[in-house]
Amino acid sequence: MLYNILAMAKYMMRFRRNVYLDYNATTNVSRSVRRTMIRVLKQYYGNPSSIYTTGRKSAEIIDTARRHVATAVNANPQNVYFTACATESNNAILKSLSRCHYPEKNKIIATPIEHPSIHQTLAFLASQNIVVEYCPVDSEGKIDPKRLESLIDEKTFLICCMLANNEIGTVQDLPAIAEISRRHNILVLSDCVQALGKIPIDLKAWGINYASFSAHKLYGPKGVGALYIKHGSPFEPFMHGGHQEGGIRAGTECVHNIAGFGEACRNIKSLLANTRRIQKLKSKCIREIRKIKPDCIINSPESSCLANTISVTIPDVHSADIMAILDSRGIAVSAGSACSSGDDKPSHVLKAIGLSDSAARQTLRISLGNRTTIGDIRYTINVVREYVTGGSVHVNMIRPVEVTEDIIFDEQNFILDVRPQFLRKIVKGLPNSHEASFFSIKRYLHLLPRDKHILVVCQGGYLAYMVVHFLKSKGFENVSCLRAGVVGWKEQCRDLYKKYAGQNISILEPA
Amino acid sequence: MLYNILAMAKYMMRFRRNVYLDYNATTNVSRSVRRTMIRVLKQYYGNPSSIYTTGRKSAEIIDTARRHVATAVNANPQNVYFTACATESNNAILKSLSRCHYPEKNKIIATPIEHPSIHQTLAFLASQNIVVEYCPVDSEGKIDPKRLESLIDEKTFLICCMLANNEIGTVQDLPAIAEISRRHNILVLSDCVQALGKIPIDLKAWGINYASFSAHKLYGPKGVGALYIKHGSPFEPFMHGGHQEGGIRAGTECVHNIAGFGEACRNIKSLLANTRRIQKLKSKCIREIRKIKPDCIINSPESSCLANTISVTIPDVHSADIMAILDSRGIAVSAGSACSSGDDKPSHVLKAIGLSDSAARQTLRISLGNRTTIGDIRYTINVVREYVTGGSVHVNMIRPVEVTEDIIFDEQNFILDVRPQFLRKIVKGLPNSHEASFFSIKRYLHLLPRDKHILVVCQGGYLAYMVVHFLKSKGFENVSCLRAGVVGWKEQCRDLYKKYAGQNISILEPA
Repeated sequence: MLYNILAMAKYMMRFRRNVYLDYNATTNVSRSVRRTMIRVLKQYYGNPSSIYTTGRKSAEIIDTARRHVATAVNANPQNVYFTACATESNNAILKSLSRCHYPEKNKIIATPIEHPSIHQTLAFLASQNIVVEYCPVDSEGKIDPKRLESLIDEKTFLICCMLANNEIGTVQDLPAIAEISRRHNILVLSDCVQALGKIPIDLKAWGINYASFSAHKLYGPKGVGALYIKHGSPFEPFMHGGHQEGGIRAGTECVHNIAGFGEACRNIKSLLANTRRIQKLKSKCIREIRKIKPDCIINSPESSCLANTISVTIPDVHSADIMAILDSRGIAVSAGSACSSGDDKPSHVLKAIGLSDSAARQTLRISLGNRTTIGDIRYTINVVREYVTGGSVHVNMIRPVEVTEDIIFDEQNFILDVRPQFLRKIVKGLPNSHEASFFSIKRYLHLLPRDKHILVVCQGGYLAYMVVHFLKSKGFENVSCLRAGVVGWKEQCRDLYKKYAGQNISILEPA
Repeated sequence: MLYNILAMAKYMMRFRRNVYLDYNATTNVSRSVRRTMIRVLKQYYGNPSSIYTTGRKSAEIIDTARRHVATAVNANPQNVYFTACATESNNAILKSLSRCHYPEKNKIIATPIEHPSIHQTLAFLASQNIVVEYCPVDSEGKIDPKRLESLIDEKTFLICCMLANNEIGTVQDLPAIAEISRRHNILVLSDCVQALGKIPIDLKAWGINYASFSAHKLYGPKGVGALYIKHGSPFEPFMHGGHQEGGIRAGTECVHNIAGFGEACRNIKSLLANTRRIQKLKSKCIREIRKIKPDCIINSPESSCLANTISVTIPDVHSADIMAILDSRGIAVSAGSACSSGDDKPSHVLKAIGLSDSAARQTLRISLGNRTTIGDIRYTINVVREYVTGGSVHVNMIRPVEVTEDIIFDEQNFILDVRPQFLRKIVKGLPNSHEASFFSIKRYLHLLPRDKHILVVCQGGYLAYMVVHFLKSKGFENVSCLRAGVVGWKEQCRDLYKKYAGQNISILEPA
């Protein structure tokens, strides 16, 4: 028994480790932020607009958080406003300024590698009589300030340039762009979401007019953003209603999220101090990928780049395939911006830096964070190596809805149920299935047919996945895994489950 | 000592109890909701847009919550979208529909008692070429459906009618209004924020096109709303960016808040079951107020009204004054909509039901909730009675910043520090102050000058407030209380604290 458990642990170490390498999509919530939020959720439920004590306490919490956020970006607290997310901040600025300036001025100059919350809002505005001109970027995603300046005309009212790119990590020379805008008396909006907590931000020194931030990229909660509006810069509310946030943003404040954002910003020094460690891991990761695939292309620039972001194009490796393999081994990476990863369209950022559609589809984004360890990088590199060098076995996954009567009652299918006993009591097995123990699967090999298709099932999908790997290594060729396991089948095929589950089950006797 | 503690407890019972009676402004977060949220904050940090396991788990949580919310309002889950707040939902619908219809149709018919998130958005749209016509309400805040119907013309595209009013509690006959709109082929938006959890909602039966909801009125978190869009009703996104919420609402989802909203809605049956108990407390409260002030006017209607809401006009009692007294005794009530309570403008709702400006300024809103007890009502009624019958002593409060050198060194001021010993070790006292024990304050009376102004101070403000009450009852006329106590003074007058704190302090010897 002990041997079996050790063997299972070995399998788990080899095939299953949770490695999150998508910190640019979102981060976990740090412990100190969580504690702050829980305290507020428990104790401070007053409406910050209410004038009695319970309300004033909530208002105080917001003020404290505002000071923390302002300090983190070197701004005056009275110029920082809380919103629901950076998408709201960006929508608010772009739509508000367009309304303020149209029709006297009607042109916005932007980079072609902005986040979708700006990219798609600009596309909307372009359909509403606003002229949007994109200043091309080089192969590293960098803007040439002179080229940007040449696009300015008397109709231009706004330059829109993100500080750090979410997909490739490129950091723009924002002070230079701000300097140009001042010379031409044009407003500047910078999406600083991906930069906050990764590089120092100094809004007072740079002098840009608007900046947007989000808490969930620096170990704060999802669902809270901030908007910086430099004193004197034009703005009209995007949401009308109450007088919250000095009349800039209506709607009852999400006090616990705002407190969490404040706490996340209070930790900003230690976040910035941690970038050196992360940069080392990133360099290691790049070196190892280059060893595996010398013809890979690193899209992230060498200098002026976020310390945590790697965009890599691996020729002949479709990113969707490798993402699935990585996911099945517990590794989370992204094939582009997380916000659009449901899409199959190649990323607009990768296309803007000159990648072809097919190269964009062979690109992975690996973004490291506070909890990333050297062990995580090694494990990930091993899985990538196995896959790229063909050592990784392709696992045929069958979705629960595909397991119909045709599959179940086809004599050419051999259903192998590898669940532990106690789980079999919770959910009944597939009809005609053969029960074996995952822990001692080796001892069942002689009972498995080599001339049939073996469908391995377990409770949730993972054990079966490992068994398929094992069987393939033992020469079984026609093996599949039931994705989401019998639980998935029960949920998605309720009628079949009711009708057949638990029928005609045989128990295999191990050698 | 024991006697003194008991005496203090008696004081506390009499003068200090936390009674929250502003549930229409916001509610506390229920324990089960909090637990759900903490679980999500800890474990499910993936971006719901990410296709790997960590992301899919977050997406599942949102789907579960969506089902709970949909069940609570009898809607299909696929017609429910999450937003950051009801203010966003209302802004989104009103602005989107205006853009869809203008210039072919340009008129919205609304009630004059809508929540500010609709009222002020309509005012904004009216400045942008949309015609907004208000259908008058009667003295109970009710709409006459026939009168509303008579306002419809061929330019009308939307009727905007809240289900339950937040200030007076009036519930409209929404099915009748929906019926009219169907006959005329006009869209209907209903702000159901205040109704959810208080009266049953059946969107499928009523057939309205749009409805908005918010979690923080039913023991869910602040910062999450929902938007119901009936299948086939027109809508264009208000926020552009990612493809979240089926493309209806961009922005990374606030997973923990959404989970909290779902959990709050899962408890809706027990909330609705609780209304009978709350209705009894409300009736008791109204009876008692009428006994105190027989000429008071209850603005909330007797029938078709929320079971928890009392709007009462008390002649000759300025609501700001009584709110302050109630607050100083730990009771939270509202003088109008919480969202506008920073304003001194009389509430538009009260004016719409026919109250004069001065009557509106004499109106309180008391809204009960799950945690309200008969003891809370009794305590509140006692404080109201004391105030209204003149038994309540007006306490002169001095703000920390007012305590300057002029006050400290003026011989006509006698500073009385009533803090317990252990607190004096944490923060030094005001210079020239006289220390006495709060627990046995009676034994110091002969030492206090009747010809000087006595400034009573304690650590945070509350003990001093009680002592002022006590001294007034003993015939001391010129007595004030330091709001926020020595802690407040230390924080707000740092220089003075550094320079003088702890100097020349005398300890009074009790009789």
